[in-house]
Amino acid sequence: MVIAAAPRHLQTIRVRYAESDQMGFAHHGAYVVWLEEARISWLRAVGASYRALEESGVFMPVVECTIRYRKSLRFDDVAELETTVSVRGPSRMSFTTIVRHEGVDCAEGTVTVAAVTRAGRPTRIPADVLAALDASN
Amino acid sequence: MVIAAAPRHLQTIRVRYAESDQMGFAHHGAYVVWLEEARISWLRAVGASYRALEESGVFMPVVECTIRYRKSLRFDDVAELETTVSVRGPSRMSFTTIVRHEGVDCAEGTVTVAAVTRAGRPTRIPADVLAALDASN
Amino acid sequence: MVIAAAPRHLQTIRVRYAESDQMGFAHHGAYVVWLEEARISWLRAVGASYRALEESGVFMPVVECTIRYRKSLRFDDVAELETTVSVRGPSRMSFTTIVRHEGVDCAEGTVTVAAVTRAGRPTRIPADVLAALDASN
Amino acid sequence: MVIAAAPRHLQTIRVRYAESDQMGFAHHGAYVVWLEEARISWLRAVGASYRALEESGVFMPVVECTIRYRKSLRFDDVAELETTVSVRGPSRMSFTTIVRHEGVDCAEGTVTVAAVTRAGRPTRIPADVLAALDASN
Repeated sequence: MVIAAAPRHLQTIRVRYAESDQMGFAHHGAYVVWLEEARISWLRAVGASYRALEESGVFMPVVECTIRYRKSLRFDDVAELETTVSVRGPSRMSFTTIVRHEGVDCAEGTVTVAAVTRAGRPTRIPADVLAALDASN
Repeated sequence: MVIAAAPRHLQTIRVRYAESDQMGFAHHGAYVVWLEEARISWLRAVGASYRALEESGVFMPVVECTIRYRKSLRFDDVAELETTVSVRGPSRMSFTTIVRHEGVDCAEGTVTVAAVTRAGRPTRIPADVLAALDASN
Repeated sequence: MVIAAAPRHLQTIRVRYAESDQMGFAHHGAYVVWLEEARISWLRAVGASYRALEESGVFMPVVECTIRYRKSLRFDDVAELETTVSVRGPSRMSFTTIVRHEGVDCAEGTVTVAAVTRAGRPTRIPADVLAALDASN
Repeated sequence: MVIAAAPRHLQTIRVRYAESDQMGFAHHGAYVVWLEEARISWLRAVGASYRALEESGVFMPVVECTIRYRKSLRFDDVAELETTVSVRGPSRMSFTTIVRHEGVDCAEGTVTVAAVTRAGRPTRIPADVLAALDASN
């Protein structure tokens, strides 16, 4: 069940030297961190602070992550992350992010998070996140 | 086309403090690094050194990565990584790793790598890797 | 021998979730990566691209790093990195970076890098980096 | 005030691929994580679990870290970490770790940690850690 489609959100990152590997490219693990930054930036853009969410007792651990790598990025490249979101049921959201460099799609990742309480029990995605999502459509 | 099924390979890791996050669990990005370690360890177990492979001009960048997270790991947990491999065509291999803690499957990841030359052109998986794979079945 | 004092350079970073640890703070290892980003940003500000430097055959590996941590940063904090540089002899530069959050000095690090060739032999800091340094004073 | 000198403790690590950078060496930030692993391993060796320490309400954040890099390590290198400890006053410990590869000292780091409560207030290093330290001399 998809109850809302999110607005497209853009964010840029610059590949850090520490993220390069000896192949001369951004290590594939760095993308996982960028996608996380894109999710948090997306939430900020719709008016929700992930930090405040956790402080209010709602956590959103990742339950699934898929990334397809098409074209490598290099240290110092500036990449544009385009993120869209779909809400799947009352407690899950999926974020799809395209990593683009100089107009070329270099990678695409989809990450699903599940809202849980501090004790790890499933909980509903907060109403204000859903409302912000609705308002932005 | 799957031309060989690899032997099951076991490796253990201990969750590093730096890999924990403020949720109190191993960050989901750490698993990507563990799966890489499991791949390299798998190659070592069948007699192939990934370092030597790169020195000979064969690189194996990741082209796809999917991880499902079922149960969180914590700092200091010792996890067992069980890896099996399938060869898909002449230049691709897929590694599936189960991350297990105290007998419980905590996560499962599949990573596909593509053999390429230093210039990034597709190349065949080296014959000795395939032979080692065959010999171990 | 200090032959030039660099201009003060400012850069901001936002603490990533992956950089938090289970103590609830930015892991002390993250600062090492931020200081590197500050160095590269400093070079960019004086007109030098570290990426271009490496492509021209000059590498600047770290030979010493000291960081004092005074006040912890948290996930999502925006920190200001203030960097000054001194050139020590023909092949070494030291970068001192203050990590500041909401006007408070939270950490201070000094990193010394040595210019080397691809083969690892000491070489001089490129003249244009020195010239840029001089011009900015 | 140094009230105890710790036993020498050895641990080995293997450089991970993700820890390599485009210079072809282990990134200098990786050593920070290794030193942390060496500290936690040292504590384990004297009978103290850092995880249990935190669960009991004693945290040991890093207050200062200095690393000197002499010879680079590469991906897949197996390094030996030799750690000694000194206790400085009632609430601070300093760990000095030599990173050795094939008998050669490649780096040396000293990290000082301060015992604090969950609320961040200074506290004493637990008596059993000190006793274990004494017993091992």
